Amino acid sequence: MDINVGVIGYGYWGPNLVRNLMETEGAVVVACADLRPDRRALVRSRYPTVKTLDHAEAILDDPKIDAVVIVTPVSTHHALAKRALEQGKHVLVTKPFTRTVAEGEELIRLAEENGLVLLVDHTFIYTGAVRKMKELLDTGELGHLYYFDSVRVNLGVFAHDSDVLWDLAPHDLSILTHLIPKTPKYVSAVGVDHVGTGFADMVYLTIHFEDSFLAHAHVNWLSPVKVRQILIGGDRRMLVYDDTEPSEKVRVYDSGIQVTTQEGIYATLVDYRTGDMWAPKIELREALSAECEHFVDCIRLKKMPITGGAAGLTVVGLLEAASKSLAAKGRRTAV
Amino acid sequence: MDINVGVIGYGYWGPNLVRNLMETEGAVVVACADLRPDRRALVRSRYPTVKTLDHAEAILDDPKIDAVVIVTPVSTHHALAKRALEQGKHVLVTKPFTRTVAEGEELIRLAEENGLVLLVDHTFIYTGAVRKMKELLDTGELGHLYYFDSVRVNLGVFAHDSDVLWDLAPHDLSILTHLIPKTPKYVSAVGVDHVGTGFADMVYLTIHFEDSFLAHAHVNWLSPVKVRQILIGGDRRMLVYDDTEPSEKVRVYDSGIQVTTQEGIYATLVDYRTGDMWAPKIELREALSAECEHFVDCIRLKKMPITGGAAGLTVVGLLEAASKSLAAKGRRTAV
Amino acid sequence: MDINVGVIGYGYWGPNLVRNLMETEGAVVVACADLRPDRRALVRSRYPTVKTLDHAEAILDDPKIDAVVIVTPVSTHHALAKRALEQGKHVLVTKPFTRTVAEGEELIRLAEENGLVLLVDHTFIYTGAVRKMKELLDTGELGHLYYFDSVRVNLGVFAHDSDVLWDLAPHDLSILTHLIPKTPKYVSAVGVDHVGTGFADMVYLTIHFEDSFLAHAHVNWLSPVKVRQILIGGDRRMLVYDDTEPSEKVRVYDSGIQVTTQEGIYATLVDYRTGDMWAPKIELREALSAECEHFVDCIRLKKMPITGGAAGLTVVGLLEAASKSLAAKGRRTAV
Amino acid sequence: MDINVGVIGYGYWGPNLVRNLMETEGAVVVACADLRPDRRALVRSRYPTVKTLDHAEAILDDPKIDAVVIVTPVSTHHALAKRALEQGKHVLVTKPFTRTVAEGEELIRLAEENGLVLLVDHTFIYTGAVRKMKELLDTGELGHLYYFDSVRVNLGVFAHDSDVLWDLAPHDLSILTHLIPKTPKYVSAVGVDHVGTGFADMVYLTIHFEDSFLAHAHVNWLSPVKVRQILIGGDRRMLVYDDTEPSEKVRVYDSGIQVTTQEGIYATLVDYRTGDMWAPKIELREALSAECEHFVDCIRLKKMPITGGAAGLTVVGLLEAASKSLAAKGRRTAV
Repeated sequence: MDINVGVIGYGYWGPNLVRNLMETEGAVVVACADLRPDRRALVRSRYPTVKTLDHAEAILDDPKIDAVVIVTPVSTHHALAKRALEQGKHVLVTKPFTRTVAEGEELIRLAEENGLVLLVDHTFIYTGAVRKMKELLDTGELGHLYYFDSVRVNLGVFAHDSDVLWDLAPHDLSILTHLIPKTPKYVSAVGVDHVGTGFADMVYLTIHFEDSFLAHAHVNWLSPVKVRQILIGGDRRMLVYDDTEPSEKVRVYDSGIQVTTQEGIYATLVDYRTGDMWAPKIELREALSAECEHFVDCIRLKKMPITGGAAGLTVVGLLEAASKSLAAKGRRTAV
Repeated sequence: MDINVGVIGYGYWGPNLVRNLMETEGAVVVACADLRPDRRALVRSRYPTVKTLDHAEAILDDPKIDAVVIVTPVSTHHALAKRALEQGKHVLVTKPFTRTVAEGEELIRLAEENGLVLLVDHTFIYTGAVRKMKELLDTGELGHLYYFDSVRVNLGVFAHDSDVLWDLAPHDLSILTHLIPKTPKYVSAVGVDHVGTGFADMVYLTIHFEDSFLAHAHVNWLSPVKVRQILIGGDRRMLVYDDTEPSEKVRVYDSGIQVTTQEGIYATLVDYRTGDMWAPKIELREALSAECEHFVDCIRLKKMPITGGAAGLTVVGLLEAASKSLAAKGRRTAV
Repeated sequence: MDINVGVIGYGYWGPNLVRNLMETEGAVVVACADLRPDRRALVRSRYPTVKTLDHAEAILDDPKIDAVVIVTPVSTHHALAKRALEQGKHVLVTKPFTRTVAEGEELIRLAEENGLVLLVDHTFIYTGAVRKMKELLDTGELGHLYYFDSVRVNLGVFAHDSDVLWDLAPHDLSILTHLIPKTPKYVSAVGVDHVGTGFADMVYLTIHFEDSFLAHAHVNWLSPVKVRQILIGGDRRMLVYDDTEPSEKVRVYDSGIQVTTQEGIYATLVDYRTGDMWAPKIELREALSAECEHFVDCIRLKKMPITGGAAGLTVVGLLEAASKSLAAKGRRTAV
Repeated sequence: MDINVGVIGYGYWGPNLVRNLMETEGAVVVACADLRPDRRALVRSRYPTVKTLDHAEAILDDPKIDAVVIVTPVSTHHALAKRALEQGKHVLVTKPFTRTVAEGEELIRLAEENGLVLLVDHTFIYTGAVRKMKELLDTGELGHLYYFDSVRVNLGVFAHDSDVLWDLAPHDLSILTHLIPKTPKYVSAVGVDHVGTGFADMVYLTIHFEDSFLAHAHVNWLSPVKVRQILIGGDRRMLVYDDTEPSEKVRVYDSGIQVTTQEGIYATLVDYRTGDMWAPKIELREALSAECEHFVDCIRLKKMPITGGAAGLTVVGLLEAASKSLAAKGRRTAV
């Protein structure tokens, strides 16, 4: 029997989830809710078999629906997901998971108590590039890790209900916390609302860890060029993940630092070593396709998702601390 | 009569200054001092007419020498420049100008009192790219300015007597303060010494101004790839300066933000606007050649250099404040 | 009343046409034929309202169908299009138009006699990039034209029924003949079948014109990297069209040649001039969407398509001559 | 004892040779001849110890000079080199070696008879990139070789005494014949003189070999962008050599073609295979430095140069045949 899925929200991202769910074996989208008549009309023209609704309740209460996909602004995530879980439905919710750690914790508890799957749509985790990087990092290819530096900047699209931190940084933070098994301790963030919307449109975010590992992200809606670049430095190798590259998205540099101590000289001598570069083949399957398949698998096999509530919560915890720091003009804030 | 120049230091950067001075009309290098015998031998093989010396004093005290070029570690700048100015010699000193604001102020005073030229080698200011950007900014092409974001990262070369902040950030800070006529107020800097030399090898630096303009620089000796990119955002246009591009180093984007306020809707609606891109022709003359010519001009015509003591001092002031912030784990520090 | 469209062929390219036709106002896909059961199943899963068929005849003979879209191998184009036109249906056929000039001429005649629209799917002509280049060339921005040089190389996909010339070069030739209002005179082509399929997998094609203008295309299925670059040189300006660039696909260089004749010197002195570069904003709408809309417009308004039979025929004429030259080891062959 | 070198010609390329010879252990430039007073003045300002002359004879006849470096237009190569060899001097001559095969053969014979070193300045052969490619090709990394495709285009500099074929193609042909141990059989070349100098400013050159291997070069002085790219395809791996890349000049793609023959299906099925990409570390030493050292080694150790007369002659043979084909509008011409 197919899993009957109801989708709430058919705005910018919803169509991608509906399309992928439709092509996922074992799942079928049976209903889609959106407040806007023109979005519902678009659903009907594309998928005449999907029932369209102007409110979420009919999906949340429909006993024939097994799973709910929530693709709405973050302010609505908690209420919608809570009701879905209480009605015994599995939930897939877009990022960021929730507005607060408290909201996220309640949803995690509800999912556990009811034996339901709760998957947070950290899409990048399902890309071939991030999966390849995870493999490289887990096998220790990079050696002792130094830093994670991410730049995610472009022009617009301004979100209407959040700053650029909550809009773009979830991507960086989900990748960071997925790849790096270290505990963040302090966060500081500075940013500006240049346009006067009440929301920062550029933010620099620094994350300090228990050791000297340092993470940094630059998220910006006011950049003339699109940059999507993550550097990860280690003492054995370093890598660059450039998501704007069509195929060679991950490049591993057999380069590093050589420290020598000469007898009689007290200063540490440091030299650098450059070597070959290597771009492993990356699986180019659409990430959402893998994510939807994983959602179905988790439901069928009662597995914990790779990007479950816990992963979502970690990201929300960092965002919450970063927002506090932002309000305090960059003050170092405990996570 | 040619200006007789003595050069102190023939390490990494000295050869570039000697070569350019030699080809500058009106100047001639007559002596070069370096502690290392092999460096002196190299000078002699290249320039048989240049006298080589194993100590700076013979240059500083030589009455036939009109100008001294100091290409040594920053810790020696103040003492060498002071003596040169006291002996009535013009001075060109590499960046960073001095270790402290106090040192810099003394040199500026000495130069003024003796009517001597004091030029700080902020090389980038003499590039065609920075000159073109100065022109664009001075004519208001970019509109109201939002931010300055610089990334200057690569692998090595580790300096032996300074951290990456004092080694690389002078470039960014000299460009920033040359282009943007705004007053920096606060600085914060975080960084790490990953290798154990006692000096930070990666630093993130944020500079707050009197208004909402924000500047940020990422300087790093541990990056697998070389990046030299500056973004400058304005409300009318934005630009990218990529120094690794062979010819189209500056790109101006006729892109920006459109703010609309619809009647009856209280939220500001922001949309972005993309337009043409334009890469102005950049003069490709070697920056040091223009700088050496400017040094000679300033001496002959008793002019103030574009990158004189004051420009050097502004950069040192920012570095000093950044170092304090770095020691205080990123605490916001007044400039 | 919507135009009822029947699509023949749902392989690699068919899905793109069906999707765009479905979203074109005034058109609706009512039937789709494909020999392969799995492709028909895919149509049904995506578009439950489209009737699927295992043969083309039911579409060609269906009186309720107004227009036929032929997305099959070139060997079948003539027979299918001929029958469609004879049955009074408008035709959109993928490139290359036909196997021979004779076949193409018959279809053009049939379309004319029956007052039907015959559109050849030269997709690139409908891209924002080619439209912008057409505008630049038509206004004489480039001055006197020197050459057109195209490189279209990548790894695979090997066509099963044609060589790389007939597979890839139609793109270059359709762009060339659309942009450059000059008459081709001779063609020469060399190529190799390295893999032993009986079809050349790499071809170099040269086209000579009535004047000294020269066109050249390199098409290749055996390249490790994907290149999609066209250079057009003129005496006032030159341009580069790089289709792999995400946004700045067309760059116009205000660069050229300066010829000076010094008195008393008989030789022509040539110098080059470099100037600004300019990347005009390119409309990023999907080309097939514009093409489908144009097809509907031509039907409704009884207009001649931009890429009608005549445009298709010109390309086929060049391909036919090139194939002759290829068989004759590159011998210069009249078009 | 140092080898005393006399250099004839101090125009565009001469300064690079003089500078590198000066820094080569075992060699010393003692004299330099140039017709132009300003060029001789430049030599004296840079190298006060080098004797400057306004004619070549004084160098050719000077018994204290051991080796002559000829950096003059090709039309003078034969006469100058002949006289130098007859006077018992070793010769290094810039590319192209000579105007004709006959001239080259005479010089080779003279060098052999007199036991002298005759080195042709095929500079690229001494780059780290070409040396790495040679290593990869010699060990069979690429498998069975398919093709060599070179694009060497940019704006200007127009040579005054040759077409673009003789100016730029020697680079491509020297790399091709150095790397690929196959015998060229036929050449065809087409080109145009757009500017009216009497010399072609763009040429497409095709070289056919004894087997199906195909080589092609596009050389052009009228391109708005600088391209320096060589593709080499093999059935196991393929490589790209991009000389405009600052460090990763050679990229090896573990990609290729898979041919399968299914039972009962007569057609060959071809699929492509993509794999990892790998950029081996390239030695970045200046090529001319390695070449000058090699010249000295060959003289001292009586070795045959890597790029001796024979290598020069092969290139001249191809150029001669290409010029014939160019005059005959691209007719296939035997080498």
